[in-house]
Amino acid sequence: MAAEAEQGFRPLDEASLLAYIKATPALSSRLGGGGSLDSIEIKEVGDGNLNFVYHFDRAMSLMGMRYIEPPHIILRKGLIAGVEYPLLADHMSDYMAKTLFFTSLLYNNTTDHKNGVAKYSANVEMCRLTEQVVFSDPYRVSKFNRWTSPYLDKDAEAVRQDDELKLEVAGLKSMFIERAQALIHGDLHTGSIMVTTGSTQVIDPEFGFYGPMGFDIGAFLGNLILAYYAQNGHADQANDRKAYKKWILKTIEESWNLFQKKFVELWNKHKEGNGEAYLPDIYNNSKLVSVAQKKYMTNLFHDSLGFGSAKMIRRIVGIAHVEDLESIKDASKRAECERAALSCAKEILKGRRQFETIEQVIEHIQSFDQD
Amino acid sequence: MAAEAEQGFRPLDEASLLAYIKATPALSSRLGGGGSLDSIEIKEVGDGNLNFVYHFDRAMSLMGMRYIEPPHIILRKGLIAGVEYPLLADHMSDYMAKTLFFTSLLYNNTTDHKNGVAKYSANVEMCRLTEQVVFSDPYRVSKFNRWTSPYLDKDAEAVRQDDELKLEVAGLKSMFIERAQALIHGDLHTGSIMVTTGSTQVIDPEFGFYGPMGFDIGAFLGNLILAYYAQNGHADQANDRKAYKKWILKTIEESWNLFQKKFVELWNKHKEGNGEAYLPDIYNNSKLVSVAQKKYMTNLFHDSLGFGSAKMIRRIVGIAHVEDLESIKDASKRAECERAALSCAKEILKGRRQFETIEQVIEHIQSFDQD
Repeated sequence: MAAEAEQGFRPLDEASLLAYIKATPALSSRLGGGGSLDSIEIKEVGDGNLNFVYHFDRAMSLMGMRYIEPPHIILRKGLIAGVEYPLLADHMSDYMAKTLFFTSLLYNNTTDHKNGVAKYSANVEMCRLTEQVVFSDPYRVSKFNRWTSPYLDKDAEAVRQDDELKLEVAGLKSMFIERAQALIHGDLHTGSIMVTTGSTQVIDPEFGFYGPMGFDIGAFLGNLILAYYAQNGHADQANDRKAYKKWILKTIEESWNLFQKKFVELWNKHKEGNGEAYLPDIYNNSKLVSVAQKKYMTNLFHDSLGFGSAKMIRRIVGIAHVEDLESIKDASKRAECERAALSCAKEILKGRRQFETIEQVIEHIQSFDQD
Repeated sequence: MAAEAEQGFRPLDEASLLAYIKATPALSSRLGGGGSLDSIEIKEVGDGNLNFVYHFDRAMSLMGMRYIEPPHIILRKGLIAGVEYPLLADHMSDYMAKTLFFTSLLYNNTTDHKNGVAKYSANVEMCRLTEQVVFSDPYRVSKFNRWTSPYLDKDAEAVRQDDELKLEVAGLKSMFIERAQALIHGDLHTGSIMVTTGSTQVIDPEFGFYGPMGFDIGAFLGNLILAYYAQNGHADQANDRKAYKKWILKTIEESWNLFQKKFVELWNKHKEGNGEAYLPDIYNNSKLVSVAQKKYMTNLFHDSLGFGSAKMIRRIVGIAHVEDLESIKDASKRAECERAALSCAKEILKGRRQFETIEQVIEHIQSFDQD
């Protein structure tokens, strides 16, 4: 049977896929093996979402990955439906604090860090895609751009003519390419997260590389802000969405504050470890460490706000939009939501260094809400 | 004869080295080939300086490299002797502008850039050495540190207890490891440059990797500043060194100003090229490009001042000192020069963002001169 898996490419149907699984220990062992394999149900999926890969067969163009079982749904769909996820901020802050801290120079020595950077450099084509759609196309005339026309024609043009905005975007773009701060997910929007009210699973890691931490944090927060602005378009007589909007704002607030708390806790826990950035015999008193952490977290906060708002802008005037807004049928209503989100994002991107707390950002978000 | 070069390791003397050269086309072709090889003079050198390598034979532990002929000497020795090099600023600004611009995202696309980053990641052990001696040891008790004792005992201790300084150094250290801005030389002090009054040759490239541009510019400028402060220790009745100090300051000024001019000229010349950082259809009016360039050069200026002053500090209280100061026999006189340099460097490192022009930095340098 082993030879089955080692042949070249051949198209698979349900029966031959089962044979492939049986012949491939990396897969069969995870599915109970032996007789239990005969009870496997095989179903064609293919909505583009990629989960943790257990097995990769280049010749067969085949991957084995974990099945995230119902009732998990894509978070974005839950946000459109108005479902509250009481553990979302806790889970996502945990995910971000751990993945970012443990792949940074706060935890690793330079050799391990640079080995990681070199390894993920091979993923450059995915980075180039991000560069184009996030940092380039929204700021120039591009056949890929679209927006809710004619309502936002002038808004899209204003983005392309905003020199101050373009200067800030240049800085973010260079940081995205040059700064290997941690191994980031690279596409951490609300469509890359699957949830139930008690479980949160991050999927679609194919954009992963060593980049700036704020790109992940900003992607998550920025997409929550887009979800917030979309709520006015989903409100109806049965549900005015006011309570849900409050929940989204609370989730944004808690996500950052919990992330910051957990990240600093990891830093304190491992400060005598191998991390190259702050050696304990230099940063040798608690006041100094505390000031260093405050400075680090403030810079990370500003980076996150910058990248988050850049990702909001590109979802309104760039190639790929978000279902939160796209699903608002009334174009004039949709444009109103989008204009508020766009105005908010432009102001955050340009003025991000003035924000000291996430609570100030939340006030700012509410001030652009036309509701 | 070709087999000669392909054997394993064997010790070489003058006769067998000549045989090796004759059997190795990469070397013999550069030396005229044939009969002209018999007139080659072979001499044992080995002062640790590494020039451009023409040929590398791992089995033989043998490198062929260009011989930089007399009267070239190491620039540092010329600065100690009080020799003026009228073309130094022009040549070095040329070298820095070209090497840094052409390996940055201002000229290259992201794929080529990341390939370069990955390739030079293998040089991580040299980077770790720099991290330790420049960004770590001077700021902690280390058996490798030394200084002109007892004169500078309190100064060295003050460095280790200067929390503001240590916070700034942490930022520079992270930038040194994380930011792949361009392929830098990595050790561009005045001992890595060979000169005559008409020729300038950069040697010792073994620290090269993709890092922040300011590290190279700062190394060169910082070592010129050290040479300046050493002059009071070299002054005697025959030569008060006052005119030479002015020449050094002028060279510092011209090196930065010419570098800036040439770098921006390269940017303008290639702005329609493949560079990913500032795409011409986004940065599409001359005012915007000019503001972007001003912002970029100001950041680079501040980075250069930060790295340059960090390199000055480590040469006074860290492991490896510079001959400019070491050659001052009178310890009390030497300590006086070193204290002025150290005080100047600490202030620049902490206040570098306040400097807008190199002329302001030169005023600052002069204000610490005890002469």
